[in-house]
Amino acid sequence: MKALAFDVFGTVVDWRSSIAREAAAFFGVIGRDDIDPAGFADAWRGLYQPAMEECRSGRRAYTRLDVLNRETLDTLLRQHGVHADDAAVADLAMAWRRLDPWPDAVAGLTRLKARFPIVTLSNGNVALILEMARRAGLPWDAILGAEATGVYKPLPQAYLGTADILGIAPSELCLVAAHHSDLAAARAAGLRTAYVDRPMEYGGRPAPDRAAAQDWEFSAGSLVELADLMCC
Amino acid sequence: MKALAFDVFGTVVDWRSSIAREAAAFFGVIGRDDIDPAGFADAWRGLYQPAMEECRSGRRAYTRLDVLNRETLDTLLRQHGVHADDAAVADLAMAWRRLDPWPDAVAGLTRLKARFPIVTLSNGNVALILEMARRAGLPWDAILGAEATGVYKPLPQAYLGTADILGIAPSELCLVAAHHSDLAAARAAGLRTAYVDRPMEYGGRPAPDRAAAQDWEFSAGSLVELADLMCC
Repeated sequence: MKALAFDVFGTVVDWRSSIAREAAAFFGVIGRDDIDPAGFADAWRGLYQPAMEECRSGRRAYTRLDVLNRETLDTLLRQHGVHADDAAVADLAMAWRRLDPWPDAVAGLTRLKARFPIVTLSNGNVALILEMARRAGLPWDAILGAEATGVYKPLPQAYLGTADILGIAPSELCLVAAHHSDLAAARAAGLRTAYVDRPMEYGGRPAPDRAAAQDWEFSAGSLVELADLMCC
Repeated sequence: MKALAFDVFGTVVDWRSSIAREAAAFFGVIGRDDIDPAGFADAWRGLYQPAMEECRSGRRAYTRLDVLNRETLDTLLRQHGVHADDAAVADLAMAWRRLDPWPDAVAGLTRLKARFPIVTLSNGNVALILEMARRAGLPWDAILGAEATGVYKPLPQAYLGTADILGIAPSELCLVAAHHSDLAAARAAGLRTAYVDRPMEYGGRPAPDRAAAQDWEFSAGSLVELADLMCC
């Protein structure tokens, strides 16, 4: 094992609480406290896979997640009959750059980085992941994944291309993710796999991809626990 | 100014002394102490621009610098009538991943990073720059440049594509480099420019591109001095 690649949304950062916090502030300013912020976060996240699927299917060229997030936000605001000025909507669309890390993330990554190169293998674009990392203190060695390979996970090229850029074989790269579906695609591409349990990702409700669970090479309750498993 | 992009070879790391050190060790093992290591470093570096020019001209698809370095090394060893086993040559080809930083580089970058995102805009490929950064302690926010944009400097797309990935205008990005030719191309593409003087890059001989000197927005004797200029 020569490098670790990390899923980010849900695995390293808590998108649901962070988006709910930003949405609550946005709705407060425009006097729409009737909209439930956590439900809004779930609905926004629900439009994520269909938006990427347009690109994965080839119906649309690779388009950065920042752009897709703005489009899906516009759709959702329209559904709620929300009217707000463009600057405020643009700022809310960028809330995905301001997600808070899970409490163990910075400490766990810092320990893992002492032994392995740590890179992102996220569907987030470079500018999004970079701004998030600076705000949250995530010590990535490099930002790879969808934009670097030109395709969205779980297409095989997202995993294979990341290993290729690193100059290593797929079997020398380990994906760290909280999602069984992501890990299953990584394993099918020849990567090693490490599962991190994030029971609060969906506010305590079961993960939508729990049926895809397999016996992963590593399984941990946090990134600090993963460092215990990998670094000792 | 929203981000700083750095040339690496010569600006952040001292390629000549580092390559000479690695070459000396290689020639010592195979009993070819007659070859001058610093001269060998200069000759190897001399094959760098012609190798990239094949890709810039379109005669050859973008090919990672790790590969070009191995090819030019093979050429040079042949010229010197050197015979060595493939593993040793492969290791020497990767010496460009093991260049030492100039004494001010880590301290200067660390201070600049507190204020600006700092990314590489180098002709080095991602794996090369990543391994160098881990060894030398260079705290990049992201590794961009040639591989991310698919073209070698000084083609305009190397500079424009880096700004585009960062989601900013060319005029919001500043190139930091020890080479007037690099800065001239960045300025022509609309970037801001910061010159760092590295009088020992060529062992004390004058820089080959000194005739391209212009009045750059910033000019400093080290990265620590640049931090003094930019951060206070």
